[in-house]
Parts: sequence; structure tokens; C-alpha cells
Amino acid sequence: MDIIKKKIGIVGGGQLGKMMILEAKRLGFFVAVLDPSEDCPAHSVCDLLIVGDLKDPKGYYELSKHVDVITYEWENINASTLESLENEGHVIYPSVKTLKTVQNKKLQKTALFTNNIPVPRFSPVAGINEIQEYGKPGNFGYPLMLKTTTGGYDGKGNALIRNAGEIETAYIQLGSGQKELMVEEYINFTKEISILACRGIDGKKVIYPVAENTHENSILDTTVVPADIDSATSEKATDIANKVMTVFEGVGTFCVEMFVTGPGDIFVNEVAPRPHNSGHYTIEGCFANQFENHIRAIAGLPFGDTNMMIPAVVMINLLGVSDGTARLLGLEKAYLDPYVHVHLYGKSKSKKGRKMEHFTVVGATVEDTTRRARDLKSILRIIGE
Amino acid sequence: MDIIKKKIGIVGGGQLGKMMILEAKRLGFFVAVLDPSEDCPAHSVCDLLIVGDLKDPKGYYELSKHVDVITYEWENINASTLESLENEGHVIYPSVKTLKTVQNKKLQKTALFTNNIPVPRFSPVAGINEIQEYGKPGNFGYPLMLKTTTGGYDGKGNALIRNAGEIETAYIQLGSGQKELMVEEYINFTKEISILACRGIDGKKVIYPVAENTHENSILDTTVVPADIDSATSEKATDIANKVMTVFEGVGTFCVEMFVTGPGDIFVNEVAPRPHNSGHYTIEGCFANQFENHIRAIAGLPFGDTNMMIPAVVMINLLGVSDGTARLLGLEKAYLDPYVHVHLYGKSKSKKGRKMEHFTVVGATVEDTTRRARDLKSILRIIGE
Repeated sequence: MDIIKKKIGIVGGGQLGKMMILEAKRLGFFVAVLDPSEDCPAHSVCDLLIVGDLKDPKGYYELSKHVDVITYEWENINASTLESLENEGHVIYPSVKTLKTVQNKKLQKTALFTNNIPVPRFSPVAGINEIQEYGKPGNFGYPLMLKTTTGGYDGKGNALIRNAGEIETAYIQLGSGQKELMVEEYINFTKEISILACRGIDGKKVIYPVAENTHENSILDTTVVPADIDSATSEKATDIANKVMTVFEGVGTFCVEMFVTGPGDIFVNEVAPRPHNSGHYTIEGCFANQFENHIRAIAGLPFGDTNMMIPAVVMINLLGVSDGTARLLGLEKAYLDPYVHVHLYGKSKSKKGRKMEHFTVVGATVEDTTRRARDLKSILRIIGE
Repeated sequence: MDIIKKKIGIVGGGQLGKMMILEAKRLGFFVAVLDPSEDCPAHSVCDLLIVGDLKDPKGYYELSKHVDVITYEWENINASTLESLENEGHVIYPSVKTLKTVQNKKLQKTALFTNNIPVPRFSPVAGINEIQEYGKPGNFGYPLMLKTTTGGYDGKGNALIRNAGEIETAYIQLGSGQKELMVEEYINFTKEISILACRGIDGKKVIYPVAENTHENSILDTTVVPADIDSATSEKATDIANKVMTVFEGVGTFCVEMFVTGPGDIFVNEVAPRPHNSGHYTIEGCFANQFENHIRAIAGLPFGDTNMMIPAVVMINLLGVSDGTARLLGLEKAYLDPYVHVHLYGKSKSKKGRKMEHFTVVGATVEDTTRRARDLKSILRIIGE
């Protein structure tokens, strides 16, 4: 087989695409990217950038002309165009069937539920009256989650309804029913965890360790590995991630986000059909990281080892503090700790709340590593000027 | 300080340049490259490629317009043009003074010798008669090394003279005195080792572990870390590497290649003012690899940790087997070992003996890791077709 000449196309050129490319380049793959922005993080490391709207079929067709396999860094993309391409014989991993199931939360949860994978109770809802019904005691009750079935990310497309009086605001916030909506029972979790899992074209799977996540304003803030859970919970979560990969027949790296409750129950919150922010720790923590194994999967190569090489890793996201031309402060001071890696995505414009970079700290214990990471969070800042 | 906007220029876009860029890109640096070939390994990951002969001043001036700091992946470059640029106020690391000393083996060895760093005895020679003198018993004797003082690499520019009858052939082989020549006493070494060392703008240094190297036809074949030497030899070698960095006032990653003799004496064979093939193991073996620390050095950042993260690493170079369009064989089979990373440089043309890629294997012991690496060497092949 002729690996050198296998050409890879990626839909989306954000930080996930960029980090996929950095791994693909080590193996010498040609990589073309489709992204709306000329200046996207992937632009300077890809071989070919096709600038195009991710809703417009045109860019997808152009991309398909240059590559042998298409993948994506992001699920809110034009699945029907990809379906047409797949029908025309183009290779797309994960498959369009998987993408279409995952990108609709109702279909995703239904697939999980019907395969006996624990998920919060959920139901599509047509309007305010139905939401009220689900809020009633004996039904899902309050708090109640309202979600758009498609297009959500980083808390967008989700609304927490604490009582009946908040239904209308939530309903309007999520588009007044213009997008399909669903309600979901609120899980009173004690921990949020996630697991990266990879599945090959041949169905072989590898699973990464359990990561523990903390969100701020619904955006991932910190990932700590190993997660502070007992081994029974860890095994249960790993089994679930394994099963999810079988259900979705996913080829590539997937992320399974889960809630853990006080009594140790686990519910799948969301599945992402791609490398994930909560898997960035694998770059420093594991021999083969989530991006490398994604590339290996779609290229038909066996996987690299997914175990931790060091006792503890902590990853923290850094969001833009203000708007303007991006400027990083504090790197020299942060690097006085010799076990720190900063990953700057190369976004020239900072925006308040925009994911601009992350950093990873490794160490001998979770406690020490977390403390050092917390200290750095106050030192490293991206401002706009 | 404004790291994001610091722009880096690299003279040379081969595999060393490419691997520097992959690290620089993680930190979001802009990187411009000067290389004679449009299709060089660095071309698809750099922000700007300036195509130009490395002897011609033109490309250097063009490069200097786009960047804040210039470095190089290779020492056989146009030092006088870089000197003019330095005099005009451009920042060049390692400095041109260092480059000029290192790129001439006579000046390099003289600097080492006068600073009490052990080197083989050496002397410039003007012609055949002088070489004959050095071959006599009581003088350096035979075997005797003849070298051009400039331009040599991978055994090129070196000739081994086993007896007086071979002097003329060696003399003609090295250009019949058109290039300055030197003789060197032959060291009957039992091991070849090397150490990567980094020095910052502020003079702070970090030193990597001792690597053990095996050459085939004067080209590096295998690097094994840790080296099979006792701790006294290891300490002595580390002290020498440390001293070398002080003598040359090097800023960036340097490689110090040394011979170890049966009685445990160490002689510096050669110093390279740049990341080195025998340091590729640091990508998998150490938290911060030689390329990352080179970038950190020239950007004025503190260093990442240089210790081994795993017990054993073996790196093997793979050279082109035949001429033609490059094609890699055996990757799927090689990747059945989950602790293997293959690095393809992205050279589209294979040539017999050309460095096309390397692979790294990690493991629990040197013995086991070496065995697995040896097995892979017979599986992975780059052919031309």
C-alpha cells in the first residue's frame, strides 16, 4: 500500500483541524482543508486551503477533487452534501450515516437508548405546552433541560429551565420552535467525565483513560487525568465508551461525554464524532494522541498506544480576555515550569470568550499538577489590542 | 512581550527545518524558510518559502525582511552573508561568530583544544608530504584521518588513510588541496555517543541524556538511549557537552558527538550548531524535544524538561533503497507495534542512500526496544518507482 500518496481532506480548519494536520504531517500526508476563513488556524500547516462556507456544497466538491479520504473536525457541517459525495464513491470517515445520527441529538440519544446505553430521559417537544407537561412532578420535573436537536455546541442550543416561569424565555432563546426542540431530564451529576475512543476501518478499537472535566459557562475549562473516580466507575465508563463506538460504527476518534452521579450511575451526555477539546491532554500524556490515532484510523493504519505515559496531566483552556489583535502575555513566566506546554491556535483576532489556546501541565500527582496548572491560569492571558 | 508576533526564519527546509516548524507551529509562530527546493520537506508547513541557493546572498536578504530572528538547520551555509545581516542589526541564533567557528573543523577543534576540551590531535596540512609526515610512527601514525576543514557531513569530506600507499587516493578524493585540509589522529573508539545541549540567550543551559550511536557507511543508522556506559563516563560526557556550550556561547540546540575508548577516555569528534539526527529520539523520549527547545532558545523562552519520560528509546534512520518517486512500504505492519512512530520527511523523490524517514520505538528496556526496532528495520522500506 502506498501511504505517502494517500491524501486527506478535513472539513473545518480550526484548532482541532490544525492539531490533526500537525500529526498527519509527521507521517508525510498531503492535507487539504475546507474552512470559511483564509486565516483559520490550519491555514499555515495544510497543503491546500479551500475557502468556502461550510453550508455551501461548492467547497465540499472542490475538496473531494484533491483528496482520497475526507474527515471533519466539527459535526455541524453539511451532511447532505457529504452524503452525495459518499454516494458518488468518495470515502468519508466517520461515515455520513454516523455523522447524521450524531449531529441530531434526538437521533443520537435514540440510538444510544435503543442499544441499552444509559442516557438521561428525553423527548422531542413541539411547543410550550408540551414543555410544561414534562416539567410536572412525576414527569421529568424541574430543573429541565431544553435543547435544539441540531447545531448546539459549548452550551449554545441548550437552556436550563428551573421552573415553569422560565419556559417561555428558554423557548424564545432557542428560536421559538424554528429549530426542532427536545427536553431532557436534568441529571444531578457530581462529576463530568469524558473518554476518547478510536475505531478502525476493520472495527478494532482503542480506548483512552477516563478524563475529568470542569466547565465554566458551559465551556470546557479544565481536564484532569486520571479522573478522581473509583475503578468500578472507571470500568463502567470505559465499557460504555466501547459500546458507543460499536453502536455508531465510528471510524476515527470519538469523544463520549458522561455524567457521574453520587450513587455512581453514569449517563451519556453527548457524543462527538471527532477529536475533542477534552482529549488535548493526550498530546503530552499518551504515546499516541487523539489526533494521531484519528489520522491512523482514517488511513487504515493500526493504532498507537493510548495509555498514560506519566502519572498526571492537567489541561486548561484559555479564552480571549478582550477583543482585538491577539497578544499573549505571560509565556516566559509560565515556561519557568519545565513541564508545561502551551498550544497557541494561531488565531490572529482575540475575542472575549473565544478559545485561543490551551496549556498542559504534567506531573507526579493530580494534586500537585492541578495546583501548578491553576497558578498558570492566572499568568497566561490572551488579550486583544 | 509579544510572543505571537515574533517571526522566525530558518535557513534550510530539510527534515530538521520541518521538525523545528512543527514545534514552532504549536506555539503559533510565523515561520519563513529559505531553501533551494520548492518541494523541500518544510514547504508545506512553513508560512513562507523563499526558494534560493544557500550560497547566494539574495535569499538571505529576502528572508531577513520577513522575520525577527534567523536560525539554521544546517551549518554549511553562507556565513559571510549572515555576518553582513548581523552587522546590519538582524538577530541570528546561533551567532555568526559561533557558526564560523563551528563550520570550519580546524577552528572548531582549535577552540575546543584551547579550552581544555579533549579532542583527537589534529593539524592543518598543505600537501601530500606533510600528510606523510603525520603518518609516521611517533607522530599520529596510521590509520590517519584526512578531512576538509569545511563542507563535510555524513562522512563526506573525510577519508581514512590506512597506510602511506593510500595517501594519494585520499588526497585526490578530498579535492587535491583545493579545499583546506587537516589530518587527525584516528581514535580507536569502542562507542560513539552524542549529547544534545541547549543554551538560552541568558546563558542558561539544559543537557539531554547521553545517546549511543551506530553509523553505517559514515551515516547515522541507530541511536539508543540511554547509552550503555557507566555513570562516570556519562557524567564526564555531560560535563564536556556543558563546557562546549560555554566555549561556543551557543544559543539554541547543539549536538556534541564524542568517541569513547576502551579505557573510558572521551574525545569530542564534532559539534553541530543545530538540532541533530541523533536527537530525534527526544520527540518521543523527552517532555520537551530538541526542536522545541531550539525554538524556545531563539525566542528567549525558558527550556522544557530534557529528561527521559520512558526507560528506553531507539531511533533508526531509513535511507532510500532505490531512485524514483518515493513510496513507503510496510507502515501497516510496523504499526502493529503500538509503541512505534514513523516520521516521513515528505521528500517526493527517493534516492539510494538519501535520508527519507526515521522511526522511533520506545519500551521498558534497551534490549527489548532494540530488538523490536531491528525487526522493523527489515519491514519499513522507502523505494523509488
